[in-house]
Amino acid sequence: MSETADSALSTEALLQPIASVLMQTSHPGNIGSAARALKTMGLSQLRLVAPLRFPDPEAVALASGAEDILDSAQRFDTLNEALADARMVFGSSDRVRGIRMLEIEPREFARLALDAATAGPVAVLYGTERTGLTNEELELCQYLVTIPANPHYSSLNLASAVQVLSYELRIEALSRSGHAPAEALHVPAPNEQLERYFVHLEQVLELVGFFGDRSSTKIMRRLRRLYQRSMPDEREVQILRGILTETEVTIRGRRRREP
Amino acid sequence: MSETADSALSTEALLQPIASVLMQTSHPGNIGSAARALKTMGLSQLRLVAPLRFPDPEAVALASGAEDILDSAQRFDTLNEALADARMVFGSSDRVRGIRMLEIEPREFARLALDAATAGPVAVLYGTERTGLTNEELELCQYLVTIPANPHYSSLNLASAVQVLSYELRIEALSRSGHAPAEALHVPAPNEQLERYFVHLEQVLELVGFFGDRSSTKIMRRLRRLYQRSMPDEREVQILRGILTETEVTIRGRRRREP
Repeated sequence: MSETADSALSTEALLQPIASVLMQTSHPGNIGSAARALKTMGLSQLRLVAPLRFPDPEAVALASGAEDILDSAQRFDTLNEALADARMVFGSSDRVRGIRMLEIEPREFARLALDAATAGPVAVLYGTERTGLTNEELELCQYLVTIPANPHYSSLNLASAVQVLSYELRIEALSRSGHAPAEALHVPAPNEQLERYFVHLEQVLELVGFFGDRSSTKIMRRLRRLYQRSMPDEREVQILRGILTETEVTIRGRRRREP
Repeated sequence: MSETADSALSTEALLQPIASVLMQTSHPGNIGSAARALKTMGLSQLRLVAPLRFPDPEAVALASGAEDILDSAQRFDTLNEALADARMVFGSSDRVRGIRMLEIEPREFARLALDAATAGPVAVLYGTERTGLTNEELELCQYLVTIPANPHYSSLNLASAVQVLSYELRIEALSRSGHAPAEALHVPAPNEQLERYFVHLEQVLELVGFFGDRSSTKIMRRLRRLYQRSMPDEREVQILRGILTETEVTIRGRRRREP
């Protein structure tokens, strides 16, 4: 924005906020191949959650000229830390699972991700080579992105999945670059704020006795989905938190007066 | 066509005439990775022109379950033989070259290739790992397909290029085969249920003293928008109503015990 008089963004700038997050990668060669795939499509942010071996010469060998992506890769111990600043989180998975969440194809993913990227960091989460994303990891995602693969053989390797999703991001960014971005009307709150809301919500639901004999897990999962779909902005998360706080004060205040 | 009464072709049948032709591949592992990429996208025809080492255990290892593609791969000594039956030939290259030919992007390639495939075999030609396609090889092609990569780093590896072009072929084939999009998992609740929730919510917020001296109008408007964006289904509205009811019971229950 600084180098041009108008507010049109370059393809590179449009893609800059998008971080690719690799979960517990076993083979460093796959990290290298993923870095190469990212760089060919003009993406630059790589985040690694608890990689088995990294840095590693095998990663460098397969990066094949994309070492800068490896050098600037951020490393995290937990997925929550890696996603803390993300305004939106997409989970890439080739599996049809028993969990209810919004499932989209790569092209729609690219549109949504670039819309969200005008407001702040966006994370694209890739699971382990063997098992993909667990249900717990998918619960941190607003959307599940599925590459519509051959139903009889859907196992794209990690770098191939990164290549296809990054390709769609680049195609979408190319079609948008040179255009002034639409002003962000709605800016979702950072992921960590929403996560803190869920913790608080569960505490208050316990307090009002909402769960009763039921397990809180299933209900909390549904409530997470509901609020994640809504993508509340910071002010809205404040309001939701305020409701919880007032509810606690009212109930605890009354309790104090009990005999 | 045999199994259905109508004349709609399956995705598999639409993709069947498309042969991927690998030119003088040096590393058998790349042949295996390419076979895997083809199979994930439902393509089945692999043709090898003078591969350096094939068959080879490394190809099998990297095919990772796509050995049937390797087993049925056809081997040719010359490119002319490999292309003999093709009605149309597309050359995949990441290089801008000094030769004048029709250059298209992968999405247009997919449309043209599937149009041509209704008439007979179509070939997609990939060059060697090091040097891509030579000008002589490109002269055998009707179109040059270029993946719009990062101009500063455009070197997709062979399997990645195969993955991206095959992905576009599959997306186009799916759209032609009457592929029904993913079934709607999420059915929003009727509006009146949501409206009743908003009435109930406002009552409970009054009860917990959330509004204080503030006007409820503005806050309720934001909360309405938040929940409307989320489009809760019936079960979710029930959960939300249940939370309000339990909150009321907890607070009123306590109140009854007040002096």
